[in-house]
Amino acid sequence: MNEILLKNVYTNGKRCDLLVRGNLIATIADSIDAPGAEVIDCSRMAAIPGFINMHTHAAMTMTRSAKEDTPLMPWLQHIWKIEAQYDKEILYWGNKLACLEMIKSGTTCFNDMYWGLDVASKAVDEMGIRGVHSYCMLDNGDMVKAEKERRALIRDFEESKSLSSRNMFAVSVHAPYTVCEDNIRWAAMFAEENNLLVHIHLSETEQEIIDAQEKWGCTPVEYCERLGLLSDRVIAAHSLWLTPHDIELMGQYGVTAVHNVNSNLKISSGYKFKMEELMAAGANVTLGTDGCGSSNNLDMLEALKTAALLQKAWRKNPAAIPLDTLLKIGTENAAKAIGLNAGVIAEGRLADIVLIDMNNSWFTPNYDFEANLVYSANSSCVDTVICDGRIIMRGRKVEGEQEILDNAAACGERLMSRIR
Amino acid sequence: MNEILLKNVYTNGKRCDLLVRGNLIATIADSIDAPGAEVIDCSRMAAIPGFINMHTHAAMTMTRSAKEDTPLMPWLQHIWKIEAQYDKEILYWGNKLACLEMIKSGTTCFNDMYWGLDVASKAVDEMGIRGVHSYCMLDNGDMVKAEKERRALIRDFEESKSLSSRNMFAVSVHAPYTVCEDNIRWAAMFAEENNLLVHIHLSETEQEIIDAQEKWGCTPVEYCERLGLLSDRVIAAHSLWLTPHDIELMGQYGVTAVHNVNSNLKISSGYKFKMEELMAAGANVTLGTDGCGSSNNLDMLEALKTAALLQKAWRKNPAAIPLDTLLKIGTENAAKAIGLNAGVIAEGRLADIVLIDMNNSWFTPNYDFEANLVYSANSSCVDTVICDGRIIMRGRKVEGEQEILDNAAACGERLMSRIR
Repeated sequence: MNEILLKNVYTNGKRCDLLVRGNLIATIADSIDAPGAEVIDCSRMAAIPGFINMHTHAAMTMTRSAKEDTPLMPWLQHIWKIEAQYDKEILYWGNKLACLEMIKSGTTCFNDMYWGLDVASKAVDEMGIRGVHSYCMLDNGDMVKAEKERRALIRDFEESKSLSSRNMFAVSVHAPYTVCEDNIRWAAMFAEENNLLVHIHLSETEQEIIDAQEKWGCTPVEYCERLGLLSDRVIAAHSLWLTPHDIELMGQYGVTAVHNVNSNLKISSGYKFKMEELMAAGANVTLGTDGCGSSNNLDMLEALKTAALLQKAWRKNPAAIPLDTLLKIGTENAAKAIGLNAGVIAEGRLADIVLIDMNNSWFTPNYDFEANLVYSANSSCVDTVICDGRIIMRGRKVEGEQEILDNAAACGERLMSRIR
Repeated sequence: MNEILLKNVYTNGKRCDLLVRGNLIATIADSIDAPGAEVIDCSRMAAIPGFINMHTHAAMTMTRSAKEDTPLMPWLQHIWKIEAQYDKEILYWGNKLACLEMIKSGTTCFNDMYWGLDVASKAVDEMGIRGVHSYCMLDNGDMVKAEKERRALIRDFEESKSLSSRNMFAVSVHAPYTVCEDNIRWAAMFAEENNLLVHIHLSETEQEIIDAQEKWGCTPVEYCERLGLLSDRVIAAHSLWLTPHDIELMGQYGVTAVHNVNSNLKISSGYKFKMEELMAAGANVTLGTDGCGSSNNLDMLEALKTAALLQKAWRKNPAAIPLDTLLKIGTENAAKAIGLNAGVIAEGRLADIVLIDMNNSWFTPNYDFEANLVYSANSSCVDTVICDGRIIMRGRKVEGEQEILDNAAACGERLMSRIR
């Protein structure tokens, strides 16, 4: 069985050896001998769990930088115009580019909301990362479309059963305001019957709350509860505009909230994410980058830093969100949400490991590794990435990188020529 | 004379050739032949002006990660305890480390507030970057100390006259609340007589404003005007808590405000920096990282991104601070503030040039270079740095880098052993 020995690595607060066997972390000890194992000298490196990006639209890398400094509606309309021109090849290279960018910034798993399971799973397979795919139901109240969406989701779910273990599948409801009541109820039932996660955009903007009160006489979270959607399988992207009762409900049902700080800031959705309140209520708090249309990159380390800075700022408390809590938001909490045996560096866990190069100014001096990782470094400190026991980046080099960049750039040019 | 030819570089919105001769940008044209020049193939690169970090305490790199997630006062006390143990060697390697980190993130000039002109200028000379040094007056109202501070400043000013052209000197007043009235008046006069910049911490926290009203019956900005300090030579770090009258005054006198967004967020000072209002009033707006004690790194590109995101968020306007305005804040406005013939890529300007590697996911697709630079990339996209016509980083490699890291790490250990 494939073995990788991380020699003299800094992890969980001390130096040790770590042996990967197959796709698992087999042993962590002061000193390990493993003849035949591939040895990585980690004397200047630290091992952390791979980040898990809990909300993105991977193929939207192809909309990156397409429309900047623009108010929400004209921006959205432009993005939709571009997306309407996507074909399978654009989707494929968009996904490959996203995987490449995530690997290079230390992400080993992402929770995606989009379409095109076939090409998305192909990209994940080839790149060696993990992906939770979905079919994103969006009917805008059109009953004919609603029926088609259910069928398409079922078709993708069936297709997902034959995918490799690194590809997972979730039910996705675009948002309470874009999916009809029947389909939300159906999604809840289908997810429960098949033990699937439910990925949804929830309470992202203030306007959404105003509209919900007008339409349903309650908040979007309350509406989801009424339709039987809330459960600990729900991954609620944004969860930004929450009432105390919403927070109580999310805690009670054990919902996972995904904070998308950079996207929320950039499109001016808000910034007072109720991180502490959600945790105190018993909800699970995680982090995402959102798609590159709104937040421009897929860098979880950057998102962690911005999230922490914002909490400290608007709460007027420099002690808000200590580092150990923060790092769990990017790893352990997310693994728990999707039922993945990862997110911590411990024996018996999946070998989804990121090696951080500490031989640079960001980690000098290194009084506090976690502080330097989040507040000083950027993601180019990620040197090596191991996912499912396989090395998928080594010395910042990913196989096939130039081919991906060239093809994605060509796809971008094709897209632009179509919308001009 | 030394010549560098940037072949097929993307700059100011188009591809061209750029010739550096001596320390200046000599020619920019569609195609340049320069036999004997060192040629850099820039077909995958863009040239931008080097960033100018308008407020930092370079040697505070040695306090990086020393105290995290801590309220302001215990944090400050810990930092002071560490700084009290600084010696010349620690100061020197702290400055070298800061220069290294700035070069690696595309900064070619920094405006420093600290002590130790001799070692700071030595570090700048050796690293090839530019520095505006100062002697930071801080007397806490002690008249004996005040006199000593004036003498020390004069001594450093005299010493600065024999330094190389890459070292500049400014008068520095720590803050209106830590320097006595006499010394603020004296600093204003001395700066005017000798045509020097005045670097000051101004209106950083809400408490500072409350205290000022109590003590002087006016805001810190109004107090500085009353003492004759305000002028277009003043560089006011933070300028965060400003009344409309403060903004009017800063515009009227042409003061330069330095936004230190990450530091302000991390120590919970506030985030509603009045960028648009200051510009509209005629003040000059620039950007700084502050020292690594409070904001952990010296990365201007990261600071630009966070600054823009925050403006969009709290103003609830995704169109706030368009990219061209934003980039000027990090370059052109700063060059203007310190009277440096740099900050733009144009013939006759100083060759302080940063080459950006666009062959990576952050610039793919590349519909909008500036958006990708600020919102997608991180500073590891900086490939090559030219300062004063000399290449000081090439392919991300800086001469003597490992020696700096090793020595700074050793200094850090020594510091910690002294405060334990």
